[in-house]
Amino acid sequence: MSNRIEIVENIMGANDRLALDNRTRLNASRTFGINFMASPGAGKTSLIEQTVPALKDKFAIGAVDGDIATTIDADRAAAAGAAAVQINTGGECHLDAVMLRQALNQLDLNSLDLLIVENVGNLICPASFALGTHKNILIASIPEGDDKPYKYPNIYRGLDVLVINKIDLLPYIPFQMEYFTKGVEMLNPGLKTFPLSCQSGEGIPEWTTWLEEQVNAFKENTPSP
Amino acid sequence: MSNRIEIVENIMGANDRLALDNRTRLNASRTFGINFMASPGAGKTSLIEQTVPALKDKFAIGAVDGDIATTIDADRAAAAGAAAVQINTGGECHLDAVMLRQALNQLDLNSLDLLIVENVGNLICPASFALGTHKNILIASIPEGDDKPYKYPNIYRGLDVLVINKIDLLPYIPFQMEYFTKGVEMLNPGLKTFPLSCQSGEGIPEWTTWLEEQVNAFKENTPSP
Repeated sequence: MSNRIEIVENIMGANDRLALDNRTRLNASRTFGINFMASPGAGKTSLIEQTVPALKDKFAIGAVDGDIATTIDADRAAAAGAAAVQINTGGECHLDAVMLRQALNQLDLNSLDLLIVENVGNLICPASFALGTHKNILIASIPEGDDKPYKYPNIYRGLDVLVINKIDLLPYIPFQMEYFTKGVEMLNPGLKTFPLSCQSGEGIPEWTTWLEEQVNAFKENTPSP
Repeated sequence: MSNRIEIVENIMGANDRLALDNRTRLNASRTFGINFMASPGAGKTSLIEQTVPALKDKFAIGAVDGDIATTIDADRAAAAGAAAVQINTGGECHLDAVMLRQALNQLDLNSLDLLIVENVGNLICPASFALGTHKNILIASIPEGDDKPYKYPNIYRGLDVLVINKIDLLPYIPFQMEYFTKGVEMLNPGLKTFPLSCQSGEGIPEWTTWLEEQVNAFKENTPSP
């Protein structure tokens, strides 16, 4: 068994090194990178469809969409106005730094201000693989239920930002926001949170305003090479 | 790389052998085993909470709940009237045949007519690991969206039964049932499907009637050892 652990550690070490390489490339091109993680159907692509039109007059935006099959998500991101690349993971349950590197090679990074990486729909495996993006963002959604922070603690611990999507469905679902928030707070105190609905548009301006500020602050703090 | 493939094949071979062992044990105790798979929050535990009270006067029911953390699901299954065992996978993104074997060891199988195994919330990894149960059942849910069969084809291909939960939310969500069904039919023609709502109770009797018939047919066809 010690052999197996060693192999796993080597894989993680290699991934972390490649994630650092990706970060260096993003910094060199002054591209702010964010990693969208979520359960299947929580609204990663829908949030891209809301975010890109709101910010595309201010920033050039790229999207990298990870899925085990189809180009549905990249097609939607492209239709919204992003330079989009689809990664089909061939069955793998998460993106890793190698896959992102391959996607970065297909984009004209120097022309992009913001890169949105859409991870594979999964609350477990993506939490273990750094990609090199600047912010890890989880999109939770009301219909998934209020116990998810308790049941999937690892992904909540590693977050920089939490989006709570589908708040338009709150009247129809027994979701205790206080119980949910208590779980999040336990794992990740003070986590920046945006409740919103990609369906009704509620809360979207707060999210896009914050993201715009983040991209601008990153640009200010990242000198041209 | 050929080395790595060999190791993966050995793991799968070992899992399949242990799954067969689990099946043999279930048959010997005349316990009908079903495997609930789903995205996080699609309603696996809620369906257990609907199913156990409806059938517990007819059958002795056990539940094995797989999660990466907490005993929330086993507590809910036990409260519903099942003999429940929680498996915490320690971060693993799916159940496998070894984990189920360990859970079977904790149950008095000879006293059980029906065993409901609740897999880890994930549409990818559980599809690759046979457990030895008699039926693989996916619980899809309306808020996840109508494109899921296209994006997660492997899990749909291996199903015996599909439950579509949260149909009470159809009026509030842009879900094209025809598009969803077309995707399912492409991957798994003629798949037995139960649209229902664990919230409103609609469609639950059709599901529990079918399950009752399945358990009875299994008992008739499985002689006492």
